[in-house]
Amino acid sequence: MKYVCSRCGHEADTATRAAACGCGGLWDLDYRPPVFDPDRIDRSVWGMFRYHEWMALENETWRDISLGEGMTPVVPFGGNILLKMDYFMPTLSFKDRGAAVLIAHCRSIGVDKVVQDSSGNAGNSVAAYCGRAGIGCEIFVPQGTSPKKIAMIASHGAEVTVVPGSRDDCADACREKARREGLFYASHVYNPFFYEGTKTYIYEVYEQLRRIPKTVFIPLGNGTLFIGIVKGLEHLAESGCLPEFPRIVAVQSECCDPIAKAAVSRASHPAEIRPCPTMAEGIAIGKPMRGDEILAFIYKYNMEVTATPEAGILDARAALAAQGIYAEHTTAATYAAYLEYSRKNGTPPDSLIPICGAGLKSDK
Amino acid sequence: MKYVCSRCGHEADTATRAAACGCGGLWDLDYRPPVFDPDRIDRSVWGMFRYHEWMALENETWRDISLGEGMTPVVPFGGNILLKMDYFMPTLSFKDRGAAVLIAHCRSIGVDKVVQDSSGNAGNSVAAYCGRAGIGCEIFVPQGTSPKKIAMIASHGAEVTVVPGSRDDCADACREKARREGLFYASHVYNPFFYEGTKTYIYEVYEQLRRIPKTVFIPLGNGTLFIGIVKGLEHLAESGCLPEFPRIVAVQSECCDPIAKAAVSRASHPAEIRPCPTMAEGIAIGKPMRGDEILAFIYKYNMEVTATPEAGILDARAALAAQGIYAEHTTAATYAAYLEYSRKNGTPPDSLIPICGAGLKSDK
Ligand SMILES: Cc1ncc(COP(=O)(O)O)c(C=O)c1O
Ligand SMILES: Cc1ncc(COP(=O)(O)O)c(C=O)c1O
Ligand SMILES: [Zn+2]
Ligand SMILES: [Zn+2]
Repeated sequence: MKYVCSRCGHEADTATRAAACGCGGLWDLDYRPPVFDPDRIDRSVWGMFRYHEWMALENETWRDISLGEGMTPVVPFGGNILLKMDYFMPTLSFKDRGAAVLIAHCRSIGVDKVVQDSSGNAGNSVAAYCGRAGIGCEIFVPQGTSPKKIAMIASHGAEVTVVPGSRDDCADACREKARREGLFYASHVYNPFFYEGTKTYIYEVYEQLRRIPKTVFIPLGNGTLFIGIVKGLEHLAESGCLPEFPRIVAVQSECCDPIAKAAVSRASHPAEIRPCPTMAEGIAIGKPMRGDEILAFIYKYNMEVTATPEAGILDARAALAAQGIYAEHTTAATYAAYLEYSRKNGTPPDSLIPICGAGLKSDK
Repeated sequence: MKYVCSRCGHEADTATRAAACGCGGLWDLDYRPPVFDPDRIDRSVWGMFRYHEWMALENETWRDISLGEGMTPVVPFGGNILLKMDYFMPTLSFKDRGAAVLIAHCRSIGVDKVVQDSSGNAGNSVAAYCGRAGIGCEIFVPQGTSPKKIAMIASHGAEVTVVPGSRDDCADACREKARREGLFYASHVYNPFFYEGTKTYIYEVYEQLRRIPKTVFIPLGNGTLFIGIVKGLEHLAESGCLPEFPRIVAVQSECCDPIAKAAVSRASHPAEIRPCPTMAEGIAIGKPMRGDEILAFIYKYNMEVTATPEAGILDARAALAAQGIYAEHTTAATYAAYLEYSRKNGTPPDSLIPICGAGLKSDK
């Protein structure tokens, strides 16, 4: 298997330690899965690796790394909504999908220590799977990350480095250290193996429902779920499983909306914005590194991008909890966006909303 | 369907509001499931209700109540251990199995408000499913219950009443209020529908592995998981699915071990003990109301009961976390018991250990 630079087309073996191409472009995978066929799902596997036939996996290392992530249920929630309960996971967020594949890759190529930056959940996942895999790990988190998240990351044996400044400063500090010390940058944003995990989200929905709902809401910060879902949908479409591509509504925060702003003017790069604080810390990404790729998908499939109002988050969180679901603030922001969207456009007939993180994770 | 008193044999319709028989005996269900047949599992259901054919369900109310609980994976953990990841659940503990069935029952018979007492997780589950079902709920918790658990319970719209004194005082206060005001006592201990949910734990293991591991560790406080598992195993045995009954090791805390103490002298009632504080708050039950039933099972199947040393809990928790699994203290106590058991008896060749609660739930 090969990496291909998304900017200049340069190729490299996936065993490379280079986080990105020399030109600065991020790696994509030179991998095309075979036709998706529900009859070929490996039902002996009780988790997302049951789709291994359509995932870019170098070998069977994932069998030793898996913590049973995935296979989360889709639950009807009122007449028109289906919730995918994606916090029923080892570290209580959907990031486990990506981290399981990424760390299996690291072990496959013999990496013995990684660095990563994360506002919390992705770092938590990477730390957990590094613990599972016996790989050393240092996670950079921005100042203000909840002590709960830091404690969980540390519990997995990872070193946690708190970086003053913004989420983006934190990413810069981590990349700088990776570069300086030649460490493997196990980034959920840079590394394309991560998306091989998050795309299973959509395979599961298809296996469970034998269809994809008409409107698919997706939180959008760095786009790890977004890109995974779009890749999964493209694969299902190519495989003849999708009568039509669903309407996708990507959800940013009004406090941090570089993609939403760019999409308004059909720009090809994320807008320069000045993020203000938001409770939706999981999607507060001012400079999404795959922003151009995300915007290209948005135009290609005529998606909508909304900027969810901060004022709706707590009410949306309470509304979910009142019906039994205690979710993270970032997840409540996605539900708030759904409610706002319905107010403006009428209730969509058939919506899929991800419940990405457990509520305790964002409590102080 | 009927209730039968476990003490005097008196029968009542399951629509009764009486928490127990007039004689004081707890209700059992007059229900015998048909033969278990893996080919008859309802694979259209993505959760534990896929076993509905073998569960005492009065109707299909569970379809509206389910939050996708169950179907948790079994994960290999070192050569000889299988972990069942039973915190991949709506409220992050296995109690959701029981609460989903219990609250479906409440809705089936038209209950509009329930009271319940719980050290935390069971109350959390009952509150969540009451929110889901639109049933009013008041939960009694003992003084000292973590503020996190209280906040989660309240988020589901339940009233939370903190009772000074021990866990047992809390149960007394709740039962007293139920009696005085004629409220439905939605107790995970009293109500036999709860065990119809927890028994799915073992059906899942069987579906996933097509066998039951030789040694099955089970935390034992009130015995809601224990009784469910034993009922499930008896059913599998009657159905010809079990070549031999597994060795069961029930795990109490050395700080609160009424069943372990009783078992030493083959007593038929739980021992009178004076509980001391323990981090394993989920199993700190001084007066288990189904203690006689639990002891009868212990003797019938020649089970072991261990009292796990307090001193081992934090190390066991750290050992799980170092390998990617951040679990509750009570769950760590079960793993500590496994480690202690292995030190004393040699490592069992094939063990099943439940990971019942997520770590964030027991953090202060
Ligand atoms: C709970 C939650 N939801 C959504 C997201 C957004 O994911 P992404 O930044 O990959 O778009 C995150 C990211 O951390 C998250 O933690
Ligand atoms: C995490 C956890 N494990 C185990 C138990 C023990 O269950 P039981 O009291 O039904 O035996 C509990 C009960 O609250 C719990 O919360
Ligand atoms: Zn390049
Ligand atoms: Zn009686």
